[in-house]
Amino acid sequence: MSFRFEIEATDGKARRGRMHTPHGVIETPVFMPVGTLGTVKAVPQDVLEELGVQILLNNTYHLYLRPGVEMVRSLGGVQRFMAWDKPILTDSGGFQVFSLSELRKMTEEGVVFRSHLDGSSHMFTPESSIAAQIGLGADIIMAFDECTEHPAERERVRESMEMTLRWLKRSRDHFERHKEEVPWFDRKLSVASGQLSVKSTSGNAHPAHEVQERRLAGTPFFAGDDTTPSLSQQQGKGGPPTASVGHESDDPTLSPKEGDKGRAPTSSLGQDDAEHSNFSGQTQALFGIVQGGMYPDLRRESAEQTVEVDLPGYAIGGLSVGEPRDVTYETVDAAISYLPENKPRYLMGVGTPEEIVHYVGQGVDMMDCVLPTRAARHGLLFTSEGKLTIKNSRFARDEGPIDPQCGCKVCGRYSRAYLRHLYASNELLAQTLNTVHNLAYYLDTMRRVRQAILLGEFATFLTGVKPPHLSVP
Amino acid sequence: MSFRFEIEATDGKARRGRMHTPHGVIETPVFMPVGTLGTVKAVPQDVLEELGVQILLNNTYHLYLRPGVEMVRSLGGVQRFMAWDKPILTDSGGFQVFSLSELRKMTEEGVVFRSHLDGSSHMFTPESSIAAQIGLGADIIMAFDECTEHPAERERVRESMEMTLRWLKRSRDHFERHKEEVPWFDRKLSVASGQLSVKSTSGNAHPAHEVQERRLAGTPFFAGDDTTPSLSQQQGKGGPPTASVGHESDDPTLSPKEGDKGRAPTSSLGQDDAEHSNFSGQTQALFGIVQGGMYPDLRRESAEQTVEVDLPGYAIGGLSVGEPRDVTYETVDAAISYLPENKPRYLMGVGTPEEIVHYVGQGVDMMDCVLPTRAARHGLLFTSEGKLTIKNSRFARDEGPIDPQCGCKVCGRYSRAYLRHLYASNELLAQTLNTVHNLAYYLDTMRRVRQAILLGEFATFLTGVKPPHLSVP
Repeated sequence: MSFRFEIEATDGKARRGRMHTPHGVIETPVFMPVGTLGTVKAVPQDVLEELGVQILLNNTYHLYLRPGVEMVRSLGGVQRFMAWDKPILTDSGGFQVFSLSELRKMTEEGVVFRSHLDGSSHMFTPESSIAAQIGLGADIIMAFDECTEHPAERERVRESMEMTLRWLKRSRDHFERHKEEVPWFDRKLSVASGQLSVKSTSGNAHPAHEVQERRLAGTPFFAGDDTTPSLSQQQGKGGPPTASVGHESDDPTLSPKEGDKGRAPTSSLGQDDAEHSNFSGQTQALFGIVQGGMYPDLRRESAEQTVEVDLPGYAIGGLSVGEPRDVTYETVDAAISYLPENKPRYLMGVGTPEEIVHYVGQGVDMMDCVLPTRAARHGLLFTSEGKLTIKNSRFARDEGPIDPQCGCKVCGRYSRAYLRHLYASNELLAQTLNTVHNLAYYLDTMRRVRQAILLGEFATFLTGVKPPHLSVP
Repeated sequence: MSFRFEIEATDGKARRGRMHTPHGVIETPVFMPVGTLGTVKAVPQDVLEELGVQILLNNTYHLYLRPGVEMVRSLGGVQRFMAWDKPILTDSGGFQVFSLSELRKMTEEGVVFRSHLDGSSHMFTPESSIAAQIGLGADIIMAFDECTEHPAERERVRESMEMTLRWLKRSRDHFERHKEEVPWFDRKLSVASGQLSVKSTSGNAHPAHEVQERRLAGTPFFAGDDTTPSLSQQQGKGGPPTASVGHESDDPTLSPKEGDKGRAPTSSLGQDDAEHSNFSGQTQALFGIVQGGMYPDLRRESAEQTVEVDLPGYAIGGLSVGEPRDVTYETVDAAISYLPENKPRYLMGVGTPEEIVHYVGQGVDMMDCVLPTRAARHGLLFTSEGKLTIKNSRFARDEGPIDPQCGCKVCGRYSRAYLRHLYASNELLAQTLNTVHNLAYYLDTMRRVRQAILLGEFATFLTGVKPPHLSVP
């Protein structure tokens, strides 16, 4: 029993619960900051701990390209790699393939794409995505799906949704066959296991900066990976890439993997405090993803058929892709009512502070979004009185904190005047301090949400959420 | 008595002492990290405290241009502005004028220059530099000097050195007349005081990126301000600049400055613990600067005449500007033997870890350098086994810390493999973690130096310093 979810309290449709994972317990509803490349940009891991971050999201597409899955696996998995001893979730890589890379060819088999870094050619299939996610070793991993574009005709959405269902079964099948290959399963794991259909060919037809521009033009502000092109411009590389993941190999002669020294080898199933440091025999939790565009009946159909594949949790994908927020809310309702009560529900890639509270009221347990971190790097700060743009000259002499209601260490120490100066001067510290504040705001919001559910005061809490947090264009 | 220096122990020429300043006590010998624009790039102030940073350096030239002296003054001075309650030292701005700006005209009166940010025209004189430094409100400020270029003919060096001496007297005279205008002197200070001869004219003849490139070509790696062009590219601004500092005004009708709330108003002269939080009647300490190029007799002459102007401390400037290190050592010896025993000696803009230890052995008490911070942002890390370039592929799978001998929080948590990944991926966190480690290395070196002097083991310590820390090109 590697994954367990229990509901502690409900208030209307809102639920307060606990998810037990190999790397620890997560209190839900939970907001998961995005750490695309194994780092929440500009924030050290000890500060994430201070903030009370319970679980991070890493992007499979980015880590697959750099430093590569086998590299992360050989270093013990994402948690050990990034020195983060708490739970991590990886996405399937599909969303980034659609939004970042030059998509070469989509077939029933999978998707061939070119890296946005160097133009090299790769293929993701349900099998290779799951293999990559097993190699990375997050606690929760996602089935490989197609994120249907928006807007899309009904028939196109139906076909895409049905392919996602077929891919779900292939994802599940591959996971069941290979789940024991996760880096922290036990010490007998072969370092060469894993399966990725990688076709790596030299190619530089699309220099990095062109891809970068295309991405900027085509990707919504809160796309599912957290990159800031203006601050992390890729250096174009001319040489051929190194294939980062080899083909499957179950060669039993390979030596046992060393590296779990310090981990207790004994089993502690059912013991919450102990399971955090004991991985023996534990595996990842694979979540399925409901698609179906903005068609409530297709969402229902997708939800019902996704649930037929018995999995520890279910996500709702393909939302917050440009549709009006009312439509998002309706679509979430359409899907969520067909998801089982006793499994966690993960709404992918959302949202603003008042939106995430609203989704909790719809019965959502998990959310992730680049908004707090990416907005921070653009100087957009969330406060109890609404959003503010720190570079605004009216803050130049403002000795007050970002948010007088906020208890974070940034608000406790620095003035708006200083933070404006840092941002206007393009200082690195602006990125760190702004991000710490925005994450504190999101995480504090979720703490208050959880408390309100426990006290049966969620409806009152929801009423008190002011709506000035407009969507960022 | 706003400033006091006492020597606690000597070992050969090395001295261990304590400097008492309005914002606290500094144990010497001390290394001062550079916080050019009111921030040690990429490192939050609480982390600087954890590292044991005792005193920071701010660059007057940069703060004068952005956010402007009057802005910092109105916000309570640099300490309050950057939420750093410990001592700060500002340089005179002269070095940056020579190295960063387009120098327009040098006269006996001062220097007219164009801002590297927007091409606007400004003038620094001894009087305006001191006025700016009083307005910024650092604990230790520097006389306005000319940093003689290297190499230079003897007569050129003599003339420059003699002008620096005349400028020293003008600096001292202006300081004595206006020293009570420091932001934290008392609450009766007029916010409009200060004197800066600013000639602000619209000008965009030299776009920021051109100046940037010129600066990159012309400035040594460890110039006296800490800027990373590749990460903090200036955005060219077309409009006319706003003059940040007005002409002198002692208008007594201006309202008293508010803003020292929370400071105890009572005097505590001679009480070490209390003086940190009591500024009533305290003023800054003005240091003079010895010049004289690489000519030992001119250095002696400069030292003797600088000391004739009775000041609380003396600096040695114009070194580490491209000369061989043996020449630096000789020149330091030539100057230091004519500086008084009972005053702190500040060697400006040095050096590598083994060099700063060597200078302590020559009798130096204070040093500053951008090397640890700027090198960190270029991925160059100092360790007990020498320097390493973190982007090197040999670290890609290295699970060890940067330096097994280092007790810093970066070495305690992160692997070389992870740090290499962050740097190779151009992640912001690389800048923070690399800088924290390098500062920890420098500060730990100085802690061990101070301990060795106390124990009379400095000579042994010096022998143990390995010389693999080559100068960075």
